[in-house]
Amino acid sequence: MSRPPDHGRRRILLLTALAAGALAAAPAWSASDPLPSWNDGPAKTAIEAFVHAVTTPGPRFVPPPARVAVFDNDGTLWAEQPLYFELAFALDRAKAMAAKDPALLTKPAFRAAASGDPKALAALGQKDVVELAVASHSGMNTDQFVAAAKAWFASAVHPQRHRPYASLVYQPQLELLAYLRANGFSTWIVSGGGVDFMRAFAEAAYGVPPERIIGSSGQTRFELRNGTPVLVKLPAIGSVDDGPGKPQNIELHIGRRPILAFGNSDGDQQMLEWTAAQPGPNLELLVHHDDAAREWAYDRQSKIGTLDKAWDEAVARRWTVVSMKRDWRQVFPTQAK
Amino acid sequence: MSRPPDHGRRRILLLTALAAGALAAAPAWSASDPLPSWNDGPAKTAIEAFVHAVTTPGPRFVPPPARVAVFDNDGTLWAEQPLYFELAFALDRAKAMAAKDPALLTKPAFRAAASGDPKALAALGQKDVVELAVASHSGMNTDQFVAAAKAWFASAVHPQRHRPYASLVYQPQLELLAYLRANGFSTWIVSGGGVDFMRAFAEAAYGVPPERIIGSSGQTRFELRNGTPVLVKLPAIGSVDDGPGKPQNIELHIGRRPILAFGNSDGDQQMLEWTAAQPGPNLELLVHHDDAAREWAYDRQSKIGTLDKAWDEAVARRWTVVSMKRDWRQVFPTQAK
Repeated sequence: MSRPPDHGRRRILLLTALAAGALAAAPAWSASDPLPSWNDGPAKTAIEAFVHAVTTPGPRFVPPPARVAVFDNDGTLWAEQPLYFELAFALDRAKAMAAKDPALLTKPAFRAAASGDPKALAALGQKDVVELAVASHSGMNTDQFVAAAKAWFASAVHPQRHRPYASLVYQPQLELLAYLRANGFSTWIVSGGGVDFMRAFAEAAYGVPPERIIGSSGQTRFELRNGTPVLVKLPAIGSVDDGPGKPQNIELHIGRRPILAFGNSDGDQQMLEWTAAQPGPNLELLVHHDDAAREWAYDRQSKIGTLDKAWDEAVARRWTVVSMKRDWRQVFPTQAK
Repeated sequence: MSRPPDHGRRRILLLTALAAGALAAAPAWSASDPLPSWNDGPAKTAIEAFVHAVTTPGPRFVPPPARVAVFDNDGTLWAEQPLYFELAFALDRAKAMAAKDPALLTKPAFRAAASGDPKALAALGQKDVVELAVASHSGMNTDQFVAAAKAWFASAVHPQRHRPYASLVYQPQLELLAYLRANGFSTWIVSGGGVDFMRAFAEAAYGVPPERIIGSSGQTRFELRNGTPVLVKLPAIGSVDDGPGKPQNIELHIGRRPILAFGNSDGDQQMLEWTAAQPGPNLELLVHHDDAAREWAYDRQSKIGTLDKAWDEAVARRWTVVSMKRDWRQVFPTQAK
């Protein structure tokens, strides 16, 4: 402190300090590109321009608590072919249930699940599928269900991709979720999938905590068993978080209008409409599955993840349609992860 | 910088810097006591010991995301006499509705609301009250309802206390909410009150944002009106967030077991049981309204805020019963606030 000033030395120290400050503020890879798995193009530009606008003081600035971003899950954050992963879980559970209780095999859904015969599975009607979903998601308490789902995630392997289901999340979306959170957004999942099922993997997979996961749900019953309270999952639907159910549940759970919504199918249309009607800045995006080589290609005619009316509306209203083939450099995380 | 050292002066500077640092870290009042409106006693000690334990590395440490604290609202965070404030709002709305549409006066609930006659109001049955609640909380969209509730809060005055309803919050609880948040807790409201009604005042009053408010709710319908989506509030109950409905909704909305629960009535019993059954550290508290001089005194025999079975359980299980008379130095914020 009492040394006479040494201008050369001080200049070096100053430069070093500035460089250290820059590095501390943003690691090298993110300073260069926070979305490395997104190819340059209109989708990436739209996202970056929107985030820049709402985080920069000025007419489009949005304070952090209002930076609510909602994401569909199936087909938006992870894959959904050849059938919704939760349905694969339900089939595996039904098979195990039928092994313990063969009387269940009188029901077509359980017989198809037990046989694993793709033809029998494809022949199931909607009523059978609902029966399967309800039976496989009830008759136990919430803690037991989460344990069952976690055990399934730890062991089940996708039949075509030969890797765990939870690894079939989209790398560009992991980067987008992290990028949004780094910019003061809260990231939410608003999915037709079951809320308890998603909570069994979503925090580890996406960094989205349980209180920010909204999904379809069954009714529960509070019971004291030997003085210990449990919530028993009942074979009765509570809320179907699809289509108009999405804005309804966004209002019920969040109580704020999102400023960004990302989906991939007609089930997301109302969520995007609700977001687009927000008076402040907003951004609506849809994944288009057009990549048969790296993932799957399907849209208007698909039974799963139908993208038809929402696509027409996206074109008419200039929502951002993300082409998996063109806009994503990499689809899934590298297998080692 | 090049001045020779002056030890006396440096010592003063050091002391000044230390003092400034201490002030920056915590204002004087909170450094001495973060809960100045709580009298010394077992309740305050239990709260401070619990917060210290779960925030200190050691066997009872709880990581911040799991520090979930849930609070009932009516009778726990604000007053609820001589009738639930939301019912006062419903009566005012019913009166206004009947003024526009006198045909409504054929219904006893609307007639009583329009007359304001305490006898007629007291004579209403539960069916009338439900009819009133449903009618006053539906037939408009969610944005219109919030505007109506905010307008009511801005103008309505409590008939006995002669101050705005939103000022009848409990000062010790405001301090407790802030103290918990300063210690890494998330603070949630889990109330039998309507979620839309609470959101109209709770963020300003308590610092609890809309996404952390769980309440009773009505069903909604998503509609496009001239291309603009609205959520119409329907005259149909969605969820009753009372008694067993509280743990059910905690699981649905938060998906984590709380570690602290604070209520005041039998409607909070299951929420406290659910919290008490959490395998980690947990704290359960009940406000006992025993202060006729400064607030109201009521418990087992009261129609509003009945504290009977939950009190017995609190005594048996050593939950913390907070005596308003003994434990709270001040009940309401000073009027000027």
